[in-house]
Amino acid sequence: MLIRAEAEISVAGLMAEIGRRARAAAGPLAIAAAETKTSALLAMADAVTRRMPQILEANLIDMANGRAAGMTEALLDRLKLDEARVLSIAASIRTIAELDDPVGQIIAEWDRPNGLHIERVRTPLGVIGVIYESRPNVTADAGSLCLKSGNAVILRGGSDSRHSAASIHGALLEGLAAAGLPEDAIQLVPTSDRAAVGEMLQGLDGKLDVIIPRGGKSLVARVQSEARVPVFAHLEGLCHVYVDASADLDMARRIIVNAKMRRTGVCGAAETLLIDKLIAPTHLVPLLQDLAKAGCEIRGDESVKQLFPAALPASESDWSTEYLDAIISVRTVDGIDGAIEHIDRYSSHHTEAVIAEDPAIVERFFNELDSAILLHNASTQFADGGEFGMGAEIGIATGKMHARGPVGVEQLTSFKYRVRGSGQIRP
Amino acid sequence: MLIRAEAEISVAGLMAEIGRRARAAAGPLAIAAAETKTSALLAMADAVTRRMPQILEANLIDMANGRAAGMTEALLDRLKLDEARVLSIAASIRTIAELDDPVGQIIAEWDRPNGLHIERVRTPLGVIGVIYESRPNVTADAGSLCLKSGNAVILRGGSDSRHSAASIHGALLEGLAAAGLPEDAIQLVPTSDRAAVGEMLQGLDGKLDVIIPRGGKSLVARVQSEARVPVFAHLEGLCHVYVDASADLDMARRIIVNAKMRRTGVCGAAETLLIDKLIAPTHLVPLLQDLAKAGCEIRGDESVKQLFPAALPASESDWSTEYLDAIISVRTVDGIDGAIEHIDRYSSHHTEAVIAEDPAIVERFFNELDSAILLHNASTQFADGGEFGMGAEIGIATGKMHARGPVGVEQLTSFKYRVRGSGQIRP
Repeated sequence: MLIRAEAEISVAGLMAEIGRRARAAAGPLAIAAAETKTSALLAMADAVTRRMPQILEANLIDMANGRAAGMTEALLDRLKLDEARVLSIAASIRTIAELDDPVGQIIAEWDRPNGLHIERVRTPLGVIGVIYESRPNVTADAGSLCLKSGNAVILRGGSDSRHSAASIHGALLEGLAAAGLPEDAIQLVPTSDRAAVGEMLQGLDGKLDVIIPRGGKSLVARVQSEARVPVFAHLEGLCHVYVDASADLDMARRIIVNAKMRRTGVCGAAETLLIDKLIAPTHLVPLLQDLAKAGCEIRGDESVKQLFPAALPASESDWSTEYLDAIISVRTVDGIDGAIEHIDRYSSHHTEAVIAEDPAIVERFFNELDSAILLHNASTQFADGGEFGMGAEIGIATGKMHARGPVGVEQLTSFKYRVRGSGQIRP
Repeated sequence: MLIRAEAEISVAGLMAEIGRRARAAAGPLAIAAAETKTSALLAMADAVTRRMPQILEANLIDMANGRAAGMTEALLDRLKLDEARVLSIAASIRTIAELDDPVGQIIAEWDRPNGLHIERVRTPLGVIGVIYESRPNVTADAGSLCLKSGNAVILRGGSDSRHSAASIHGALLEGLAAAGLPEDAIQLVPTSDRAAVGEMLQGLDGKLDVIIPRGGKSLVARVQSEARVPVFAHLEGLCHVYVDASADLDMARRIIVNAKMRRTGVCGAAETLLIDKLIAPTHLVPLLQDLAKAGCEIRGDESVKQLFPAALPASESDWSTEYLDAIISVRTVDGIDGAIEHIDRYSSHHTEAVIAEDPAIVERFFNELDSAILLHNASTQFADGGEFGMGAEIGIATGKMHARGPVGVEQLTSFKYRVRGSGQIRP
């Protein structure tokens, strides 16, 4: 017990020091020139490429440890790096380097009758904490996005990938040093002790401005329930597709197979299909045949089973299950009213799509539903910062505060007002 | 003890019910037409005017209770309503009625190479909690701003003003009913039990999206440290004015007297004057003479006292004191570097002003300082939503998340993405 208590004290001290260093680095970083940050990012990408042998070697250690620990093949695949994946990490850093620098951008400006000119300009948030699991690329992606947006970052990766993460982190530090930026701008928590996460959730004594969890539902749930600082995250992506009576059947077939089956493990994958009962007799069978042919298990309500007997019966819990797998729940609804009622009740407010040709239906779907992303006649799998044109994203948020939807460099900024006068005083 | 425990249980139950009602009202409110909200606000303003006799009568009860309880004259003046103040409450509601409706506004839109058209549109936040003290006008201001922005609101006023608040709230309910909007859109917590505040700070089981405290430092400090939901607030406005060597002396004189003395009790009042030591020998005395003549007490550092012997000595604690009174702390600094260093160290990141003619100095002040509002050649007393052209504000926030600076109707909104396609699927 004594040893444990001492370890906790030392983790607390370590994390407090990391917090202080991050806050100190955030000052110069916030006013660093755009070109300095860009050159740091390009130097990081070069360093990742140059250090390929060491990075692959470090990854081999993590992979061997993972295998010895009985990690599943799916998890091992997430952890694994090869030459192509390392090059893709470097390419992502270069993509981020080429983005417009958000800091200092004028978001809005206007004049007042008294001659004051007011500008709202983007500023960094300060210090961002990123807590993630086994994907080694998150180290580089999160580090680069935070640097581009002028924020210091504290990275806390999973213990499974610690050798890979440390090796990639070394390349990031080389880039910072090459550009003359403080190395404390991107810190990697050097301990696997879970108490370090607890310290971050407490906010490191005011040094941490926001936490972004990247990983499975249990990690996100813990962060959301325990964090004493703002969190940008989504717990799940329980995405719906509604096929209205006015839908073009061919388009609906293409979109639904893509929304469900393109990649089943991403948060933008469709989980529930709602179909207007008016067209179920004609449209349901071709839609479900496509899905079945693509290898999808279908769980339907009573009316679905009558039209498509191969469907398994859906239970109440299916409507609130994010499968992240080749399974879809299907029910018929009473037009747009029924669709809105179902989505309101079961959605995780991430992404929903309507397939319809009637503009009045689309407007109701767009106005009455309040999810981060609503799509018309397009696949839910477009729920992605890259697809939105943000260049890269650190994740998708379903909260309504500050950031919502894909979180890119702009969402990692705050703003301040600059007011230019010529001697104005207030009457 | 038993009675106390039962009271707590009943307050918890009451607040849970208020939370549920607010959440239920937030749904229809979010999609209410702009005209419906405007007509509700105009009906509220009419009802406030028509109910003037009852409102003044209710206020007399609060005033009598306040006097009996030994309230100070300053507090009694805040609490007091007369005909002019009630008319001004009605006028404020009409001003808010005339603002552009923020809900549904397109903040940004762009096209993607694949033909998707993306819109970022404003949505309400949901349910807002406002915790305030004795100013009766906050009931109407907060209720109106939340309604305009499509949010349900839970108002928790101080017990000192409870009769006045209840009477004004009655007029707001009349306006809601006249427009066919749910009366639960604007609820007034009907108990003075302080446990009600505790329940709000816990977030009412997820029913409360944000809390806005309006009142003194101890209220704001408690809300900031205990709230489990986001808070829009500023703890204090420790505002600085820096007079650079390049300043126009006449302009500096006008601005400084205004920044400090126009109203000393507002958060945008200047508290510390920093002057470039290069010009102290010529500029300091006229600046301080103006302030002294206006009735301001001057507390200076050693160099200030040498030039202006009437100054009292400033101690270290003066640099971090928000006087909210006719007192100013003054020191000489080593140019813009010294000014930035001092402000970085002592500022509450609310509002700072630079008086200078050299554009390079202004740019450094604007870029290197990170307060919510930075002004050039203008009084700090412009730190106000009305002066920014927002029509009205519910307060000023110094946090960096979501809202910063004046919090008007736009800052009380979130956003969602609407994506319009024509059959796009993701490759």
